[in-house]
Amino acid sequence: MVKTPATPDSMPEEAAATSDLFSAQSHPVGAAAGIELQDLARHPTRKGSVLVSCIDYDADNLLVQEINDLPEFIERHRPEWSKVRWINVRGLGDMQVIHAVAEKYELHPLAIEDVLAGQQRPKVDDYRGSGEHPGRLFVVAKTVRSTRHRVTNKQVSFFLGRNTLLTFQDSPQDLFEPVRRRIESPGSRVRTNDVSFLLYVLLDYIVDQFFPLLEEYAGRIERLERSVLTQPDRATLQNIHQIKRDLLMIRRVAWPMRELIRELTRDHHECLSADATTYLRDVYDHMLVIFELLQSYHDFVSTLTETYMSTVSNRMNEIMKTLTIISTIFVPLTFLAGVYGMNMPIPENQFAWAYPVFWIIALAMTLTMLRWFKTKGWF
Amino acid sequence: MVKTPATPDSMPEEAAATSDLFSAQSHPVGAAAGIELQDLARHPTRKGSVLVSCIDYDADNLLVQEINDLPEFIERHRPEWSKVRWINVRGLGDMQVIHAVAEKYELHPLAIEDVLAGQQRPKVDDYRGSGEHPGRLFVVAKTVRSTRHRVTNKQVSFFLGRNTLLTFQDSPQDLFEPVRRRIESPGSRVRTNDVSFLLYVLLDYIVDQFFPLLEEYAGRIERLERSVLTQPDRATLQNIHQIKRDLLMIRRVAWPMRELIRELTRDHHECLSADATTYLRDVYDHMLVIFELLQSYHDFVSTLTETYMSTVSNRMNEIMKTLTIISTIFVPLTFLAGVYGMNMPIPENQFAWAYPVFWIIALAMTLTMLRWFKTKGWF
Amino acid sequence: MVKTPATPDSMPEEAAATSDLFSAQSHPVGAAAGIELQDLARHPTRKGSVLVSCIDYDADNLLVQEINDLPEFIERHRPEWSKVRWINVRGLGDMQVIHAVAEKYELHPLAIEDVLAGQQRPKVDDYRGSGEHPGRLFVVAKTVRSTRHRVTNKQVSFFLGRNTLLTFQDSPQDLFEPVRRRIESPGSRVRTNDVSFLLYVLLDYIVDQFFPLLEEYAGRIERLERSVLTQPDRATLQNIHQIKRDLLMIRRVAWPMRELIRELTRDHHECLSADATTYLRDVYDHMLVIFELLQSYHDFVSTLTETYMSTVSNRMNEIMKTLTIISTIFVPLTFLAGVYGMNMPIPENQFAWAYPVFWIIALAMTLTMLRWFKTKGWF
Amino acid sequence: MVKTPATPDSMPEEAAATSDLFSAQSHPVGAAAGIELQDLARHPTRKGSVLVSCIDYDADNLLVQEINDLPEFIERHRPEWSKVRWINVRGLGDMQVIHAVAEKYELHPLAIEDVLAGQQRPKVDDYRGSGEHPGRLFVVAKTVRSTRHRVTNKQVSFFLGRNTLLTFQDSPQDLFEPVRRRIESPGSRVRTNDVSFLLYVLLDYIVDQFFPLLEEYAGRIERLERSVLTQPDRATLQNIHQIKRDLLMIRRVAWPMRELIRELTRDHHECLSADATTYLRDVYDHMLVIFELLQSYHDFVSTLTETYMSTVSNRMNEIMKTLTIISTIFVPLTFLAGVYGMNMPIPENQFAWAYPVFWIIALAMTLTMLRWFKTKGWF
Amino acid sequence: MVKTPATPDSMPEEAAATSDLFSAQSHPVGAAAGIELQDLARHPTRKGSVLVSCIDYDADNLLVQEINDLPEFIERHRPEWSKVRWINVRGLGDMQVIHAVAEKYELHPLAIEDVLAGQQRPKVDDYRGSGEHPGRLFVVAKTVRSTRHRVTNKQVSFFLGRNTLLTFQDSPQDLFEPVRRRIESPGSRVRTNDVSFLLYVLLDYIVDQFFPLLEEYAGRIERLERSVLTQPDRATLQNIHQIKRDLLMIRRVAWPMRELIRELTRDHHECLSADATTYLRDVYDHMLVIFELLQSYHDFVSTLTETYMSTVSNRMNEIMKTLTIISTIFVPLTFLAGVYGMNMPIPENQFAWAYPVFWIIALAMTLTMLRWFKTKGWF
Repeated sequence: MVKTPATPDSMPEEAAATSDLFSAQSHPVGAAAGIELQDLARHPTRKGSVLVSCIDYDADNLLVQEINDLPEFIERHRPEWSKVRWINVRGLGDMQVIHAVAEKYELHPLAIEDVLAGQQRPKVDDYRGSGEHPGRLFVVAKTVRSTRHRVTNKQVSFFLGRNTLLTFQDSPQDLFEPVRRRIESPGSRVRTNDVSFLLYVLLDYIVDQFFPLLEEYAGRIERLERSVLTQPDRATLQNIHQIKRDLLMIRRVAWPMRELIRELTRDHHECLSADATTYLRDVYDHMLVIFELLQSYHDFVSTLTETYMSTVSNRMNEIMKTLTIISTIFVPLTFLAGVYGMNMPIPENQFAWAYPVFWIIALAMTLTMLRWFKTKGWF
Repeated sequence: MVKTPATPDSMPEEAAATSDLFSAQSHPVGAAAGIELQDLARHPTRKGSVLVSCIDYDADNLLVQEINDLPEFIERHRPEWSKVRWINVRGLGDMQVIHAVAEKYELHPLAIEDVLAGQQRPKVDDYRGSGEHPGRLFVVAKTVRSTRHRVTNKQVSFFLGRNTLLTFQDSPQDLFEPVRRRIESPGSRVRTNDVSFLLYVLLDYIVDQFFPLLEEYAGRIERLERSVLTQPDRATLQNIHQIKRDLLMIRRVAWPMRELIRELTRDHHECLSADATTYLRDVYDHMLVIFELLQSYHDFVSTLTETYMSTVSNRMNEIMKTLTIISTIFVPLTFLAGVYGMNMPIPENQFAWAYPVFWIIALAMTLTMLRWFKTKGWF
Repeated sequence: MVKTPATPDSMPEEAAATSDLFSAQSHPVGAAAGIELQDLARHPTRKGSVLVSCIDYDADNLLVQEINDLPEFIERHRPEWSKVRWINVRGLGDMQVIHAVAEKYELHPLAIEDVLAGQQRPKVDDYRGSGEHPGRLFVVAKTVRSTRHRVTNKQVSFFLGRNTLLTFQDSPQDLFEPVRRRIESPGSRVRTNDVSFLLYVLLDYIVDQFFPLLEEYAGRIERLERSVLTQPDRATLQNIHQIKRDLLMIRRVAWPMRELIRELTRDHHECLSADATTYLRDVYDHMLVIFELLQSYHDFVSTLTETYMSTVSNRMNEIMKTLTIISTIFVPLTFLAGVYGMNMPIPENQFAWAYPVFWIIALAMTLTMLRWFKTKGWF
Repeated sequence: MVKTPATPDSMPEEAAATSDLFSAQSHPVGAAAGIELQDLARHPTRKGSVLVSCIDYDADNLLVQEINDLPEFIERHRPEWSKVRWINVRGLGDMQVIHAVAEKYELHPLAIEDVLAGQQRPKVDDYRGSGEHPGRLFVVAKTVRSTRHRVTNKQVSFFLGRNTLLTFQDSPQDLFEPVRRRIESPGSRVRTNDVSFLLYVLLDYIVDQFFPLLEEYAGRIERLERSVLTQPDRATLQNIHQIKRDLLMIRRVAWPMRELIRELTRDHHECLSADATTYLRDVYDHMLVIFELLQSYHDFVSTLTETYMSTVSNRMNEIMKTLTIISTIFVPLTFLAGVYGMNMPIPENQFAWAYPVFWIIALAMTLTMLRWFKTKGWF
Repeated sequence: MVKTPATPDSMPEEAAATSDLFSAQSHPVGAAAGIELQDLARHPTRKGSVLVSCIDYDADNLLVQEINDLPEFIERHRPEWSKVRWINVRGLGDMQVIHAVAEKYELHPLAIEDVLAGQQRPKVDDYRGSGEHPGRLFVVAKTVRSTRHRVTNKQVSFFLGRNTLLTFQDSPQDLFEPVRRRIESPGSRVRTNDVSFLLYVLLDYIVDQFFPLLEEYAGRIERLERSVLTQPDRATLQNIHQIKRDLLMIRRVAWPMRELIRELTRDHHECLSADATTYLRDVYDHMLVIFELLQSYHDFVSTLTETYMSTVSNRMNEIMKTLTIISTIFVPLTFLAGVYGMNMPIPENQFAWAYPVFWIIALAMTLTMLRWFKTKGWF
């Protein structure tokens, strides 16, 4: 699978990082919210930029298809044995594909907009069944990754029906490869469960992505601590700043992800089986751990900043002490030498013993000063 | 449309910005709260400073009128096909117009005061129907804009009835031009829905105004970060201060706006259709995003302040090191030179080799010092 | 009316301000809480220090009396047309008056103590009707004023019955003059409503007192901002400190006031009419605005403190740069001059070109240094 | 009554203060929680270190006894007229006394442990009546005192039954002397009420102890403020630190005390009469005031710390300015003087006018510098 | 019992400390959550690394067994008199043992994974009884210890059934030795109670472990305070940093432990007897004390940091004052001496009185300066 240049992955790095933390939505002000089916045509489209795959399975059977002729696929009925159908849409560039899927599964205009906008806040919306739209659970989730010391995130949208799960990813790259492989192994727990269990598995997979990221930051923070305690410099400061920034960004994704999972475990939805809910509680535990780790990291980096500042102040003190000691000793002596360098008639300058006496006085003054500094605990 | 000089838009800039953040209400202490109809006459009035327009529509018909003869208009009945009537009052200077509208739609005295006071906190009040007053939902919202690096806000008030929406803006400038154009396009979703959907569309429009503002601040914060990390100076400091101040101000508007939208989606009101409530949930999602962005910006600017302070401390260290190195090397040497400049009989001064030896000692001392500084990690 | 010297108004200013922020209650440790009727006699009393006025009204009639002969007044029956009776007790020095009123209206001992103690926390107590005591709503409120840059507060206590409102103020000065005038104007809304509406009007009046105070602080904070950004000095620092202190104090009053009003609007009390509750919601809105303003002021003053500290650090940097630049240039040169001032045989001193060469070297060193400082961005 | 040396009162002061803030419980790890009656014997005991007094009263009768022969006392029946019996145990050293009381009143093992451990968190436990133990309300409270600038606290435990109140204090000193005197005065409110009213009176007394303490800290904070604003030095810093520490400690006691009182007023207990609950609401108001005062003090001391730091920074600036001004003026001049002190052939040194010209140049340079400093606002 | 080298106890110290604070879970991304019985075999296993002991008891009988032949043990029935069976599994290296126990007691796959993962967040999961799994209460707790100034924690997992308690510890070392001894003493309260009381006893024991740890930190903080107030240096700073870090870590364990205990006391579970719940309330009180102590320590260390920074600033001021005083006195004098050392014709140099006059002037200048410094309060 070729990585198409239009995916966020290949955006210039700095811009990508910034847009994650800072950028607001691109919804044009004053436009109608929600995208009606007939309006999809007006969106810019790129033929062939969307990959659609479909997996049907029950405990005993499995059918994996890469869909090329979507209209034909939509007209066909699903196999009778198919207990779970998972349609995975990767890439959102071809509006005809989106239109076909949205029409077939009667997706709500607001949900379609959220799928396409791509910078949605993780959330769960319950579109209850009614005449116009069938009942769907709409979930927007986000994965977080660190590429070359930059944190980026990707949106994945889910539509959960009674037997069907639709997923939309904004890049053709397949995030869920490992899950697919688990489905393909017969007898795995996912094969014997219903479609909401598949949703759980995918969310669990997304949440698990946080752990290697946190592990990476744990390492960076630890190296930072060593550098703060031993040899703090400008680079240390910039690293602290960078990590604070990244943690803010990760938290911005983790917070609504946590809320999302909690909502799924708390409220009862018709499409969620009891078993899936039990397992989602486990995902929620993971989110709690992630959140507490983020909090710990954040608190610890704050502590590091304070320690950094104190260390810098300490060093300043040390520097100033050196200067003050040197000056306090030599400035008066220099004055004394200056006095005896004056060209006026100075009685002392007549005597041969003047010079050794001068040195004795100089030494005595120096020693007095040094003792005084010692008393004050300056060294 | 000419911009009248009395609108807040044309207030001296600094004063305007200040009054937004700081100013308390202008309600005279000890006066009765609420403005009775008969008291409106006593308020200062300016003829002709109010523009009233009326739009009637259903899915098939549309009538847009600019009202010049208000009394005549109020006596006329609305067209029979009119499913939704939107009366938009722009400018609040002419008390006779306000009186006529308030009398016709039997507005509550407290609500009239809130409309005219103009510095109200965004809120929703449910005036339930009773003998004296018909049931109305009263909503006060605020738009935020940045003009020449100053944040200003404007109040818009809504009275929602069963088929009628009244809006009051404090300047004759039309904020809702784009919405008007959407109503004029036949077949748009707003045309096929009821009057509470129109309220949703207007609130959605107001909330969307936050995004370009946030986008602007995202850009400024990012430029600020670059300047903090590379070349922090006084202007950087003043910029940080300015942005902190503006974020405080935007948050002061965003917070009650969020509460307002949440109240509309949570509590059920007789005038709000189920469809409008569904779409308002989407507006609430936007408000959540806005709020989290504001929070992120705020946290990040705090981080920037800390980094700024640390950078300044670092620079101070660097400056002091330079001074201390120079002083520590030359102050003792100067003393030594002073000694041999004394006019007393100094044996060393007799010898020709004294001068080169002096230089050798000076060089040796300098090198020793430099090595010592190196050990301490000073450069 | 002459201002009696014993009122808090005339307390030495500094002491008053301090006691507001810091002082704890004067209730003697170990004494019984609550003041029984028979114990009132034991409290220190000052004849004639209490002014009692009584206003009876309905929509059509009005009777205003200044009560001199309280026992006689208490025995008389109220006029039959009197829908609302408001007894306003100003000054709390004469225990016989307090006793007479407390006995007549069967006030609870704890409430009497709260009235007399005078440093009570704003609160609402619901003394439900029972055999011994009739049902009363007891409200303690506080007004805040700024006199000569000092914030002071005064306590007002209310007993609301079904047709009667008792108010107690601790100074003979009449706080409620403007409200009285509103009652006297026939046809005003207060005249056509019941006694709980009168309570609302008085509370609204008290809450409105916050606004000019906040307006004053808004002005001071703004002047402070200008001085922080342009010319921060010691006075600036003391002003920041003063305003922080005052805001703490105002918040200490505003917080329980807000709770008090909320409780009145939330819980249903038999003595509160629905209309009064609706209008109290408006007062609650005002309290919310006041509270958010206080919060904004507080946050902004914190921001100012940070900016102040940063500015001071910046200035320090500038000062140190000047010192370092001067020292770095001249200290080595002074050393060089010192060398050629030595009285030992120095070959260079023989030659006529030595002097101009010395100057050339000095200039070259200076220029090199300056260029180096430029590279470092020091000026 | 002689103060026995083993009471916490006479502990070495510093240790006492520390243990209050820092020390954790002395419950041995791994031992069973709760102390069974039969295990009491194994605790270290000191004969005669416990004083037990008993007061029986109703509105008309009163009997005060100091119990010396506890077993005999326990066997006797209480007088028939006795409506309330208050047994006050002072000192916890004699295990046989504790055993006798605990057995007679069937106290719960966990409660006995809490009484003896002495460093319990203030709390209320409701031991509901059952076969083994009669229903009791168990309350642990703490008093706070300041002795020679050290904050110490003492634990008082209460067991409230239907007609009997048991109190345990850890020192033989009688904390409740003033309450006892109030009981002895006939006709006092406490005499006409039931046993739960006595609990209220004692708790009220304990809570009132906070006020003189807070008053003392108010005075210290105020003196501190004056010293921060006028002449901050090291002692100021140590005082700020000390007060922060003490406030932390007082808050650690006040917080659970507040929770305790709230629980007593909120939850209904069979042993608490309605009247006592009404009066406890008054105590809760006091605790709220105490808590808000503590919060105010804490916030204000934080403000003082900031002001202190800013003042110190300001002073540093002033010091550095002095140094820089002096150096900037004299360092270049000293160089110039050094130049003309060189022993090389210098043309200017030939002329008689050289000396006055030198002084003119020196003065001109000085004036230029001073003007430049003035421009920069340095003085 | 030999300590096996693979237990966390023997990990390199620094690594262990780090992993506690920072490390995220080791669950491989993309793997299925939960460990099915049949998958246990695939986990790495180490024969003989698990010790299993079983204690059966009621009030009168007791049977303690170290299980060597697990399969045989599992097949046997428990003694008829056995009211409580406690199976304690120490070490988690031998998968066949885990498998046997898990199969016998039908443990949930998610719970098995939590037991083995070993870095689980303390929590309680209620696996309600159903066809597949019998009802179990699953509790994960953590103990905290400090070894050689490093804080480490260990996980203990509990499965509570109706008559059976399973505990899993990750090291063969027996944490619960003292509890075992208490069970062995006949007539102890634990012997007369049911299995949930045993759970309480073990949790109480774990919670009690916090107290010596806190006591240790109390001592360290106190020593730190002394050093901050008298002689702050770099080591002080590193100690503050270290303690902050450790408190963060302890809090990360204490927080979910508190939640866990609260959940056990609040929600009613079929396996928890009323008596155990009463006693767990006591454990919860302990956790509250622990938490408030941690909070106090944290607040106090923050206060220490501030005091440290202020002390450092104060010292800097003192240092700079010294430098400035010395420089301000001698720099002008040195200039003056330099002037009279110039080799140009200087009239003053002719006169014999010039030298004493020079010294008089020097002294006068010095005294003036010193007086000026005194005025400024510099010493």
